[in-house]
Amino acid sequence: MTQVQHARMGRVTPEMEAVAAAEGLPVEEIMQGVAEGTIVIPKNIRRKKIRLCGIGKGLRVKVNALIGTSTDWNDPEMELRKIAAAEAAGCDSFMDLSTGGDIDAMRKKTLTNAGVPVGCVPIYQAGIEAIERHGSVVGMTPDDMFAVIEKQAADGIDFMAVHSALNFEILECLQQNGRVTDIVSRGGAFLTGWMLHNQKENPLYEQFDRLLEILLRYDVTLSIGDAIRPGSIADSLDAAQMKGLIVAGELVARALEAGVQVMVEGPGHVPLDHVEATMKLQKSLCHNVPYYILGTLATDVAAGYDHIAAAIGGALAGMVGANFLCYVTPAEHLGLPTEEDVRAGVIATRIAAHAADLANGNRAAWERDLEMARARVRGDVEKQIKLAIDPETARTALGGADGDYRCAACGENCAACVAAGFFGIS
Amino acid sequence: MTQVQHARMGRVTPEMEAVAAAEGLPVEEIMQGVAEGTIVIPKNIRRKKIRLCGIGKGLRVKVNALIGTSTDWNDPEMELRKIAAAEAAGCDSFMDLSTGGDIDAMRKKTLTNAGVPVGCVPIYQAGIEAIERHGSVVGMTPDDMFAVIEKQAADGIDFMAVHSALNFEILECLQQNGRVTDIVSRGGAFLTGWMLHNQKENPLYEQFDRLLEILLRYDVTLSIGDAIRPGSIADSLDAAQMKGLIVAGELVARALEAGVQVMVEGPGHVPLDHVEATMKLQKSLCHNVPYYILGTLATDVAAGYDHIAAAIGGALAGMVGANFLCYVTPAEHLGLPTEEDVRAGVIATRIAAHAADLANGNRAAWERDLEMARARVRGDVEKQIKLAIDPETARTALGGADGDYRCAACGENCAACVAAGFFGIS
Repeated sequence: MTQVQHARMGRVTPEMEAVAAAEGLPVEEIMQGVAEGTIVIPKNIRRKKIRLCGIGKGLRVKVNALIGTSTDWNDPEMELRKIAAAEAAGCDSFMDLSTGGDIDAMRKKTLTNAGVPVGCVPIYQAGIEAIERHGSVVGMTPDDMFAVIEKQAADGIDFMAVHSALNFEILECLQQNGRVTDIVSRGGAFLTGWMLHNQKENPLYEQFDRLLEILLRYDVTLSIGDAIRPGSIADSLDAAQMKGLIVAGELVARALEAGVQVMVEGPGHVPLDHVEATMKLQKSLCHNVPYYILGTLATDVAAGYDHIAAAIGGALAGMVGANFLCYVTPAEHLGLPTEEDVRAGVIATRIAAHAADLANGNRAAWERDLEMARARVRGDVEKQIKLAIDPETARTALGGADGDYRCAACGENCAACVAAGFFGIS
Repeated sequence: MTQVQHARMGRVTPEMEAVAAAEGLPVEEIMQGVAEGTIVIPKNIRRKKIRLCGIGKGLRVKVNALIGTSTDWNDPEMELRKIAAAEAAGCDSFMDLSTGGDIDAMRKKTLTNAGVPVGCVPIYQAGIEAIERHGSVVGMTPDDMFAVIEKQAADGIDFMAVHSALNFEILECLQQNGRVTDIVSRGGAFLTGWMLHNQKENPLYEQFDRLLEILLRYDVTLSIGDAIRPGSIADSLDAAQMKGLIVAGELVARALEAGVQVMVEGPGHVPLDHVEATMKLQKSLCHNVPYYILGTLATDVAAGYDHIAAAIGGALAGMVGANFLCYVTPAEHLGLPTEEDVRAGVIATRIAAHAADLANGNRAAWERDLEMARARVRGDVEKQIKLAIDPETARTALGGADGDYRCAACGENCAACVAAGFFGIS
């Protein structure tokens, strides 16, 4: 039985208890949220002990990191080092986006090494295998696609991005209205190519019940892939995006009906003045299920600093409804991320998530900032290091590990020190 | 005559023309804004050729960088290198916050080396000199304070942060209501110490007309210092902050009346859900003059990454009213920034300002992002590098200067490339 099915029967599971404990919330609230679909707990029934991550309404905003091999850069050991670096930096989940080398072997390694939920995008593997076998993605059969989904689910994948919310109606809308950056979703591009070449409807849309049946069996959380997300500021909130969101909402209703945990993937490149509308539309069209966003990037021109552009957009989005932020690294739009990029991406995204938590009045987040403020007033450097998002970096900057800390910011004229004197704070 | 006086007589100055050209706006709009006080053009009448920077309503959000020596770190040559680095990274102005070594000599060097407007905080120098002469800031006389203001204005300083919006009523409110981080403004702390020790009202408040008279003579733009800005998330939008803003508004009215260009300095540490209220309150209480904010930092716990916490807050603030963002570097709360920190701070703050410009519908900002999106679709790497906020970093990431660029992000399966094929884009 899935978490949703348990919840609807009023049964508390160990997974709900773990999430409740991590969030400091009554387990009944978690159960209620899972039953209604406003909360998901991605965990495949085959997956063993992991640090669970509840995603959704009333919970802390979570952070996902991406890893995976590609044809140009196929080094599984490096990907494992990225997993270690990202977990040390505090990510809540991974997606393994491998498209090169032995994809099955990499996925198994990821599942073994990651201590948190792991997601996949099955159409990547199906597409790549079709290219290898038939020379092109258009050679895939629907059975190929579902075989990969079944295989990944059986391996223990906890959540899956499946680009079901894409059909000919949406593509026609896209072609009719035009766009600057057409399709920037790789899964969306694979499927669009397949549909146009074969003149057949998207099997992941058409055979949606077949997908649900597999996901249900393993309690894999469905993440409805955002196949036609805007790939530039100029394309945000266009007709095709809205059509896609409407279809996603219809599929969400069917997934909820079937007892499958479900969330919806979102953009992408979004100007800040579109963020609130984008989040509210997802909530209203998609029955308030969790929103998993890729950014959102507040500008197109921050190449080399897209982790910052995404932290800006992600924080605001988290304040107005986004529940799950996919990290963006400094390498976005430029190349594959190094280990250091992965670390930078997780940290920046965690800052965004935490800023959103504060704005949402999350008690634990407020207490952490309050403790930090008090540690600053007291001049308690060890406490400041401990409370920092990245204690390692804070320690280095504050003078190394030898205990000889010195705040050089203001020399003898530090306002905090001067003010502490006036107000009698020791 | 000051820019305001010219504008009110309907006279267009070369400074207004330069700003109009830089913004791509009719010069009448700039003149109107200067006349009403919604736009300032910081430029001392003694300052020679600089790249002018209009700040205010309808203009691009601008970015200020901080430099300056301190007692612990007194290396003027390093500060000059920071000026070069910050200007190369695209900052619109500087503030020289020197508090150590030969402050007068450093200021003159800054004015000579900077190609953009330069600001100062005269109470720093007055306070430091009092410490040197009398062993404490409390030994300053009002004449000492005004002598420094006069000297800095005569040197050619373009804008000045003066902490006039601080009086006993505000301090009583602060003491009555309590706060976690009391006073984190250094100027505010100096003056509070002075007031409490001497039991005399703040001379910069009490003798405000004397201040205006000096500023008027050199057309120095007044930036009303935010002496009691919140220094932690917990202190945001408290009673003392509001009292300070009300007093600032009263002083703004007097400055406008006197024909002095004026803006107001703002926080600080602000949770994202307070940003809009904070900006709107400043605009309504302070007669819509430009708002110059220090951050705003969206969390207290991002030590080592405060440039990101500030980019998050600053971008949102810029969307809802902030006109001028003081940069925050990764060294904030930890120590003095290095040259590399300065660069990182300017870039992050420029990303925030640009994100705000996009949200505000700024035409040039939109065109830049649109060009970037088109360059990505075309695979025009040189154009992408040229349009990036930091072309140097983008070029390095894209494969060095030898022209052999290769986007490794998706290997052969790049969505943009795949999609380009389907949609017939070459």
